[in-house]
Amino acid sequence: MERKVYRSELTPVSFLRRSAFIFPDKTAVVHGDRRYSYRQFAERVDRLASRLRADGLRPGDRVAFLCPNIPALLEAHFAIPAAGGILVAINTRLSAAEVAFILRDSGARFLFVDAELAPLAEGGAPAGCAVVRVDDTGRPGDPYEDYLAAGAPAPVASWLADEEETIAIDYTSGTTGGPKGVQYTFRGAYLNALANVIGLGLNGASVYLWTLPMFHCNGWCFPWAVAAVAGTNVCLRRVEPGRVWALFEAERVTHYCGAPTVQIGLVNDPAARPLDRPVTFYVGGAPPSPTLLAQSHALNLHPIHAYGLTETYGPATLNEWRPAWDALPEEEQARIRGRQGQAHVTADLVRVIDGAGNDVPRDGATLGEVAMRGNTVMKGYYNQPEATAEAFRGGWFHSGDLGVWHPDGAIDLRDRKKDIIISGGENISTIEVERAIARHPAVLECAVVAIPDPRWGERPKAFVTLKPGRAATAEEIIAFCREGLAGFKCPAAVAFGDLPKTSTGKVQKYVLREREWAGQAKRIN
Amino acid sequence: MERKVYRSELTPVSFLRRSAFIFPDKTAVVHGDRRYSYRQFAERVDRLASRLRADGLRPGDRVAFLCPNIPALLEAHFAIPAAGGILVAINTRLSAAEVAFILRDSGARFLFVDAELAPLAEGGAPAGCAVVRVDDTGRPGDPYEDYLAAGAPAPVASWLADEEETIAIDYTSGTTGGPKGVQYTFRGAYLNALANVIGLGLNGASVYLWTLPMFHCNGWCFPWAVAAVAGTNVCLRRVEPGRVWALFEAERVTHYCGAPTVQIGLVNDPAARPLDRPVTFYVGGAPPSPTLLAQSHALNLHPIHAYGLTETYGPATLNEWRPAWDALPEEEQARIRGRQGQAHVTADLVRVIDGAGNDVPRDGATLGEVAMRGNTVMKGYYNQPEATAEAFRGGWFHSGDLGVWHPDGAIDLRDRKKDIIISGGENISTIEVERAIARHPAVLECAVVAIPDPRWGERPKAFVTLKPGRAATAEEIIAFCREGLAGFKCPAAVAFGDLPKTSTGKVQKYVLREREWAGQAKRIN
Repeated sequence: MERKVYRSELTPVSFLRRSAFIFPDKTAVVHGDRRYSYRQFAERVDRLASRLRADGLRPGDRVAFLCPNIPALLEAHFAIPAAGGILVAINTRLSAAEVAFILRDSGARFLFVDAELAPLAEGGAPAGCAVVRVDDTGRPGDPYEDYLAAGAPAPVASWLADEEETIAIDYTSGTTGGPKGVQYTFRGAYLNALANVIGLGLNGASVYLWTLPMFHCNGWCFPWAVAAVAGTNVCLRRVEPGRVWALFEAERVTHYCGAPTVQIGLVNDPAARPLDRPVTFYVGGAPPSPTLLAQSHALNLHPIHAYGLTETYGPATLNEWRPAWDALPEEEQARIRGRQGQAHVTADLVRVIDGAGNDVPRDGATLGEVAMRGNTVMKGYYNQPEATAEAFRGGWFHSGDLGVWHPDGAIDLRDRKKDIIISGGENISTIEVERAIARHPAVLECAVVAIPDPRWGERPKAFVTLKPGRAATAEEIIAFCREGLAGFKCPAAVAFGDLPKTSTGKVQKYVLREREWAGQAKRIN
Repeated sequence: MERKVYRSELTPVSFLRRSAFIFPDKTAVVHGDRRYSYRQFAERVDRLASRLRADGLRPGDRVAFLCPNIPALLEAHFAIPAAGGILVAINTRLSAAEVAFILRDSGARFLFVDAELAPLAEGGAPAGCAVVRVDDTGRPGDPYEDYLAAGAPAPVASWLADEEETIAIDYTSGTTGGPKGVQYTFRGAYLNALANVIGLGLNGASVYLWTLPMFHCNGWCFPWAVAAVAGTNVCLRRVEPGRVWALFEAERVTHYCGAPTVQIGLVNDPAARPLDRPVTFYVGGAPPSPTLLAQSHALNLHPIHAYGLTETYGPATLNEWRPAWDALPEEEQARIRGRQGQAHVTADLVRVIDGAGNDVPRDGATLGEVAMRGNTVMKGYYNQPEATAEAFRGGWFHSGDLGVWHPDGAIDLRDRKKDIIISGGENISTIEVERAIARHPAVLECAVVAIPDPRWGERPKAFVTLKPGRAATAEEIIAFCREGLAGFKCPAAVAFGDLPKTSTGKVQKYVLREREWAGQAKRIN
């Protein structure tokens, strides 16, 4: 077929090509003392791509990366699609067995592994998978750098024939069962990246700090979004609040993203002090508490509440603030800020549906499942046609998240399908209870799960982490909840200590639940 | 074929649907005392679409509008594609014969015509074309309003099967020969609109003033761009500088677009005074003079130099300013600002090619033709496969604009292919001469064309409009030019008076040239 003059396949690689062509001297990547201009960044990308081709990469080969937020992984987001491979960015907080599962399931033919994480990948790579160690030094002698050095600095010819080809496979953190590989398309990545640019307000002056793991939904597509505006990426091997505050100042950071748990760490760090300019961030992964939002504002950190899943390339909805809301009472504002809002500009509008796939009433009360479709929904689970068909039943992606639909169209999550508590025939949202507890001045964070109860079927139990140097008793916490919640919603018990978390900072409620339901034949009552 | 969960055809109608759903109470349209919220705007769009369907509109029927920048034409940009028709927004400054040509060539089945412009369309509509008058009152009794009132307020079912279908046909102003219908796709309109959002920096707080005609490249795709961010459109029946300054203040305008001629009118208006906030605008259609840029900055009006053609949905390239340029000498900065730059974020990189289709050297000196391709290049000329094939030869759109390619990749127009002056074997850029003349303090604007010369073949002649109350002689202008230009480039003659212009404010050099070359067998020497 002849190439149409008026059509180019959408690919986020074009963002890097354009920025490197127009702004070659702009700083693309900062990593400690290392600095790469867009010219250098693109050259490193092209060296990696051409070396992979020289090493026998075939169209659609999976190329796995097990790295923290370092330049190599940023480069992979352009080099692997440019080379014609599929990027598999692996969660660095998994166990060796889980890493091995992903390498096997994806059939990785190449693995790039950070030296610190090498033990995690030991013996996990399938037969025939080439392994390259990344020392993250940027200097000769680093196997990754030597790999690049043997590549050619010019772009390889593109193999991309259709923008619906797979650009990346992202494994879900998988609270139950084996992880599933979520397939992203070139088209979806391109469009979600543009929505990020518009939603977070990125432009050529933006400096983006990598607090969000790039292995998580490809960093919510931000490697591509930052390249689209020729912004600057500030890398970060690990998220230490003190280091983040130092980088805020030293690199004049303007934007970042993170789960509430990251933000909790930031606002409570001794180094926290109000910035001389507004810094905007997407907060997602879980609804931020009103308390956290207030603390953030005081530091000139301005959150935009985003919501999405691995299956939606990260952010799918935004809670876009409206000036009219400024006039509402504080408490009402806080309630509104906790909502997930609606679809970003390149996504289709999000629905809340009942079991038959029909809209629930937009009454802010009826619980339903959040459902999505459109260009920024995954292509399907890798090699899992049945799981894909199940998730896509009725022509919509079923998120597994439960929420209500407000009269103004905003969605408002109430729970994960499996996290809801049913007590005496009443539904209890664990999130609602968690929000109440989070308002207590001594509480750093908390999680609520259902525990079995002989009388009511289920009751809520709270697991609470206190702020350093603060104290509270179970009785105080429960009494505090009673001030704002119906009696049946208040915790029946409170336990203190650290919370089990996934790599992305989500509390692993299923771990708590397993503990509480041990010995029971089922997990609901 | 079953509908894919992960694909929605790209259409800018989705921008309005989303904004009306999420921000129903935001002001979408301002027109004098009239105000439409996004809810009202969408309802008017849906009424127009459903009424057209009820009136027998079939898929792909052309629906012509002959209107100034009023709400009806803004509504048409969503209603016609929503209904499944193709919008033909006709240039209101054409003659009745030209309007009739377009109505006939496009085979319009519906024509909506502003009452003031009705004489232009008199007798021009082809047989069977329904005509609806638009009184622009917004009140019952206005035939357009009555037409909407008879429609239904709910969206009609979409007929869009493929995003590469035609959304609009825009007729080129056609300096020679009959106008050609340039076809835009849904995909191209969507992507050019997003590039506008990012390039001009639109967001939810944006207030966009309609100084640029919507009939020109569909307002450079800004009806769709403003809807994408739920911004506010401020309509304007005609561009009167005093009224523009009044609206800047009254409506707190943040953005607009216009040809240099519009900007010249603005900065020289008695009402001009520095604004209390920066207002950003795309200036395009011709390179802005350094003088004009300096005057604009002083008023807190910040231009971004954009360049494109009807065939590229309006803006195709941007001259994006870099902080490093701030340190350059004033004169060098002015030179750089006059460049057209490079492709915006959703366009492919632009090339400058020789007659064989190869890149010219990037030396800032070798003249070549500017060539484009990608998603924001037209689908082709309507019913003109030969003209399309000619324009698309070698797989690239040939712009007919001549320019040089700078070492940094920026393109810099030197002339329209037909406007270049060849004098004694030397090429003279008429733009260069015009820029020199424009720096004279008494000059408001000017145009330079070739005139036949027995000795040199061609020589430049300048046509100059002086500022009100200012005086200058031909000798003074020529002497002024000699200070900065090589002798052979200086005008051989200077004439004073008004310049003939196209509807979009471009000076019609061919009119001047025709006058000067009357009686000659050819137009070059």
